[in-house]
Amino acid sequence: MSEILAQNGIVFSSAALDAFFQKGELIPAVVQEAGSKEVLMLAYMNRVSLQKTLETGYTWFYSRSRRTLWNKGATSGHLQKVLRIYGDCDSDTLLLEVEQTGAACHTGSHTCFFNELWKR
Amino acid sequence: MSEILAQNGIVFSSAALDAFFQKGELIPAVVQEAGSKEVLMLAYMNRVSLQKTLETGYTWFYSRSRRTLWNKGATSGHLQKVLRIYGDCDSDTLLLEVEQTGAACHTGSHTCFFNELWKR
Repeated sequence: MSEILAQNGIVFSSAALDAFFQKGELIPAVVQEAGSKEVLMLAYMNRVSLQKTLETGYTWFYSRSRRTLWNKGATSGHLQKVLRIYGDCDSDTLLLEVEQTGAACHTGSHTCFFNELWKR
Repeated sequence: MSEILAQNGIVFSSAALDAFFQKGELIPAVVQEAGSKEVLMLAYMNRVSLQKTLETGYTWFYSRSRRTLWNKGATSGHLQKVLRIYGDCDSDTLLLEVEQTGAACHTGSHTCFFNELWKR
């Protein structure tokens, strides 16, 4: 991991990433579009999908329903190029800043959060 | 629920909200600042905390560690006034657009995602 991270200009220990998987094997990863700052989706990462994301610079998640790793956009072409990854204060959630190709949502919507449930 | 929602100008069935709790009792709720579009935090909601959020117009979550409902900012004064709530495409995640008073993070940081782990 350290080598991978060094390649990308930030050096920190693999333990710093492992800290995010202390409470469980899966953590939520919020995906936000860099330009519009729109929240596009939330998916789950395990340690391996995070490592593959760091290695490739594109998002990899873990599908709870299919119980497998998936590279977002691998079939649709709607890849997410990762610009930055932030961890939260208690190290159990990730925020990924990405450049989204096409639609983030499988429905064809740009964002998965298109269903307005309530407004003030 | 229907009366509460009607008061807030949107009418939809309680079943529409119940759909979000089919997979489990807790769902992640992403909190985004309306003005800056900054992602402030992620917390978990159960059906009751969502109902209290709708009733009060301020965020209520469920603390997994303390195993209790909590009204964000009740002690710090750093309340989150909810402007809009969106559901995602597969009805298992919420996005809340809020007006944040003070800092969202217990550390005093405006956002909980202040820990940059990686950048391209």
